[in-house]
Amino acid sequence: MNDALTLRPIGCVRTPWRQLQDCPRGVRGLGEPAWLEIDPAFEDALLGIEQASHLHVLYWLHQAPRQTLRRPTPHDGVLRGVFATRSPQRPNPIGMAVAQRLRREGARLLVSGLDCLDGTPLIDIKPYLPQADCVPGATLAWQPAAPASVPAP
Amino acid sequence: MNDALTLRPIGCVRTPWRQLQDCPRGVRGLGEPAWLEIDPAFEDALLGIEQASHLHVLYWLHQAPRQTLRRPTPHDGVLRGVFATRSPQRPNPIGMAVAQRLRREGARLLVSGLDCLDGTPLIDIKPYLPQADCVPGATLAWQPAAPASVPAP
Repeated sequence: MNDALTLRPIGCVRTPWRQLQDCPRGVRGLGEPAWLEIDPAFEDALLGIEQASHLHVLYWLHQAPRQTLRRPTPHDGVLRGVFATRSPQRPNPIGMAVAQRLRREGARLLVSGLDCLDGTPLIDIKPYLPQADCVPGATLAWQPAAPASVPAP
Repeated sequence: MNDALTLRPIGCVRTPWRQLQDCPRGVRGLGEPAWLEIDPAFEDALLGIEQASHLHVLYWLHQAPRQTLRRPTPHDGVLRGVFATRSPQRPNPIGMAVAQRLRREGARLLVSGLDCLDGTPLIDIKPYLPQADCVPGATLAWQPAAPASVPAP
């Protein structure tokens, strides 16, 4: 097996959520924008980012325990392995979400679609490739129903 | 800024490609299957993986230089920042692809859709969530045209 691999944060994520219990569940339809604050040492790597409407954002779930291998999935209570869920508790606590790119100000990017804690270390930014990343026929048997876009009266 | 963050490989990827120049470019439509060989210490984390038709596979691009911030995009030669491309050369060389799950044999998963080197360290496996991960309206201005599914005569 390989030696340990080391990540260097490239910046951090600024969100309105200061504690885990405040973070929304799931990432789509989230209205709150978040700032990706890139370390100025990496600003050159943003050249051309405006050509992507959406980004894959990878971040480090710094408060998540890493020993968990199985846990009940919150919406149905069924025990599943963490590689079969998007639980933040996993051997390598890398979070990943598709975010909409809204605006750039120097080394800062305003996005929407993130649900992580304020101050979360940022690991990587990749452009979303519609051809490769959007798989319309994909299925997940236990996926919870989409949240209603309009609350029931 | 945060201290360095350490990843532990959860296994490795077995593909037919032993050298970088043999790896195909791009990940969709690749016919060659690959095995994800999970370290038995993490096998419990696979419980329920069969419920996902597709997986996000995260791996460590162990041969890629990490100092590159900008480079010409291969298909058009335009200089772009690495956060605006899917170049393996990036500060944290994490590769990510959507793979179709084909079969499980104990701690091994047969998938298709990977283009990485044989022996690539495996970092994480996440189920593909169609609701959150498929964004049909996303655009990437410079995205190369899809490879033809049938070669021209």
